[in-house]
Amino acid sequence: MTSEIISIGTELLLGNTINTNTAFLSEQLAALGIDVYYHTTVGDNPKRLQDTLYQAVKRSELIITTGGLGPTADDITKEVICEAAGKRLVLHKPSLDRIDAFFKRIGKSMSPNNIKQAYIPEDGMAVYNHTGTAPGIIMELDNCTIIMLPGPPSEMETMFLKEIKPYLQEKSPYTIISRTIKFFGIGESALESKLRDIIDRQSDPTIATYAGEGEVKVRITTKTVSGQAKLSGLEQVTGVINDRVGEYIYAYDDLSLEHITAELLISSPYTLSLAESCTGGRVSSMLTSVPGVSKSFKGTIVSYSNDIKTNLLGVKKETLETYGAVSRETAIEMAEGARKMCNAHIGLSITGIAGPDGRTPDKPVGLVYIALCTAEGCECFEHRFAGDRTKIQIYAAKHAINYLRKFLVKHIRS
Amino acid sequence: MTSEIISIGTELLLGNTINTNTAFLSEQLAALGIDVYYHTTVGDNPKRLQDTLYQAVKRSELIITTGGLGPTADDITKEVICEAAGKRLVLHKPSLDRIDAFFKRIGKSMSPNNIKQAYIPEDGMAVYNHTGTAPGIIMELDNCTIIMLPGPPSEMETMFLKEIKPYLQEKSPYTIISRTIKFFGIGESALESKLRDIIDRQSDPTIATYAGEGEVKVRITTKTVSGQAKLSGLEQVTGVINDRVGEYIYAYDDLSLEHITAELLISSPYTLSLAESCTGGRVSSMLTSVPGVSKSFKGTIVSYSNDIKTNLLGVKKETLETYGAVSRETAIEMAEGARKMCNAHIGLSITGIAGPDGRTPDKPVGLVYIALCTAEGCECFEHRFAGDRTKIQIYAAKHAINYLRKFLVKHIRS
Repeated sequence: MTSEIISIGTELLLGNTINTNTAFLSEQLAALGIDVYYHTTVGDNPKRLQDTLYQAVKRSELIITTGGLGPTADDITKEVICEAAGKRLVLHKPSLDRIDAFFKRIGKSMSPNNIKQAYIPEDGMAVYNHTGTAPGIIMELDNCTIIMLPGPPSEMETMFLKEIKPYLQEKSPYTIISRTIKFFGIGESALESKLRDIIDRQSDPTIATYAGEGEVKVRITTKTVSGQAKLSGLEQVTGVINDRVGEYIYAYDDLSLEHITAELLISSPYTLSLAESCTGGRVSSMLTSVPGVSKSFKGTIVSYSNDIKTNLLGVKKETLETYGAVSRETAIEMAEGARKMCNAHIGLSITGIAGPDGRTPDKPVGLVYIALCTAEGCECFEHRFAGDRTKIQIYAAKHAINYLRKFLVKHIRS
Repeated sequence: MTSEIISIGTELLLGNTINTNTAFLSEQLAALGIDVYYHTTVGDNPKRLQDTLYQAVKRSELIITTGGLGPTADDITKEVICEAAGKRLVLHKPSLDRIDAFFKRIGKSMSPNNIKQAYIPEDGMAVYNHTGTAPGIIMELDNCTIIMLPGPPSEMETMFLKEIKPYLQEKSPYTIISRTIKFFGIGESALESKLRDIIDRQSDPTIATYAGEGEVKVRITTKTVSGQAKLSGLEQVTGVINDRVGEYIYAYDDLSLEHITAELLISSPYTLSLAESCTGGRVSSMLTSVPGVSKSFKGTIVSYSNDIKTNLLGVKKETLETYGAVSRETAIEMAEGARKMCNAHIGLSITGIAGPDGRTPDKPVGLVYIALCTAEGCECFEHRFAGDRTKIQIYAAKHAINYLRKFLVKHIRS
């Protein structure tokens, strides 16, 4: 099936808002085996929207629109599409009741404007909005299916996942199964070169790589017309990938590194404390974004000054004088200090030079030490990261979290 | 001038990459007084790119493309545009020399593929790439100016700001001056309603509002054909905005709240330490993203457990037992503790319930206390934030930073 996505909203053309909806929908459609050939964005302008729609109906079997379903006069998506299709808008009573109930639930009364949202094309199908007021709409026009979704990403994503995805799966002649494998510590091009032969000869399952901020993910997708997905092919490719680059895999699901690591920590008997210098609290902030982590996470000391390294973490003055704040020795004493001061099983520390200032002749910007200590002993790792301050902080934080993850995997399993 | 943006790259249609280039370019073009009517994304497919280009040339005076200027066979932008325009590609020796020099600088040798990047349309103009290898291209076709930019955001943004923006400014009959005003503590709709009359009657200067994560910015833009920008109009609107909602303004420039606050702190005689509970290190991470802050920032104690609140911050056991960890009293003792333990002038603390767990009958998810203490005394602020865990953490962190900013503004000026 060929498809295209039309985003509607003047705020997108003014650059007020980054369009994340198209990337989300494109990834979802790819996973369903639906080809996306075009993304188009138009403003709240009836003529240009109509032109865009006419063109799309001629060249695509599926059109997904986002935006323009709101209650104000600027919201014109279904009005323009109905006019182009020669269809009337009719009041959809169940949607009106849902909108009314939505406002009652949040303790407000429905404004007359919102009634507009309950109108849908005469032979269209209303789609339930789990998180907002505007129903989505599915309608047919000249052998083309048009699906209209609301613009706010949280409403759109929930509606797509709960309502539209099952609809498209049912409509599709295929059964699609996909698996995401997530990697840390290997770049996209290095990963691709290690998997080049299976990427090149892919047909079913298909293999796609996605990269971002030091992480890579691979999605393996298999489809079948028989209704029986070829799970064996998916398992076989997973096995090959695991054999070749298994050491870099941290998840067989689309979860973040901090999420996987925090979940491991929560399920372990260990407690954690942190001592952060150049990352300034970033590791702490990432891990505490995961609900439930308070069970296992005791606290963090962000030691930006040497005072705090000595007074709160117990780093020896001689260590700082002899080796400097950015050194293997200081990292280890910081991790030990965090562990003892917070009475935790694991102490994890980061010290480094995030730049742009702070370099010395023998210590460049990007030099980072990460130490992990328990009562059984310490390990320390040296890294030299490239990039600006933010990139160095992010990479250092993710590497620290990955060392913690590897420690937990090793000690929980053994 | 009417314009449109064409993004080229199959990775965008697969959803591998979020398209941030169009938002950046749209905002820049709007600030130059150039209307953007369409964004289109197509893959690395010659036929569909050509169709898109023909359509764009017919309806727009300016087309900006991004992507497809790389060294591989997939990169087809200038080849397709030249074919459509009936023009040849010719080797541009200065670009070839620059590419060669680029590789020498990073200690690598130029691969034969990269020579392809030095070819430009016969009557096109090569645009210098400050951060990568592919030159940009400016060419004319049927009364339409086509500007081809590289796809990687850092290359594209630098090229636009350093080369294309001055080119468009010169080409434009207008002189454009704009000012960004940034707000914290007021929502976009509340701000719009307070400025409704001046937004409604805007013509020159124009006024646009942009919202994101608890912050709003207003851009005021004035243009003139005489070569003399009407600064007085811009000053007058700034004055009106300042009179009505000045209390929420934190910058007259496009800088982040943490940047403005860290700069204020660095320029002040004060030092800072933090005690974070529900924000888990986020305030610390935000402030330490700003270079140079180590001069004034001593450190942070992230006290996720009550132990650490008592042992490291010196919060009294009775306080925790009587009032709970999420209370005005605990917040104040945390801020006092951070200040004293780190030997800083200012102690800033946050304690609250980020959820989804942790609520009690009288303490809902989203309840947050923020305290700021100095040797002269303490202030404490209660907030009730709505949203999920991440949103509550972000809002709490930004409010804490804003209280610090207000303290610094008051005490530096007085």
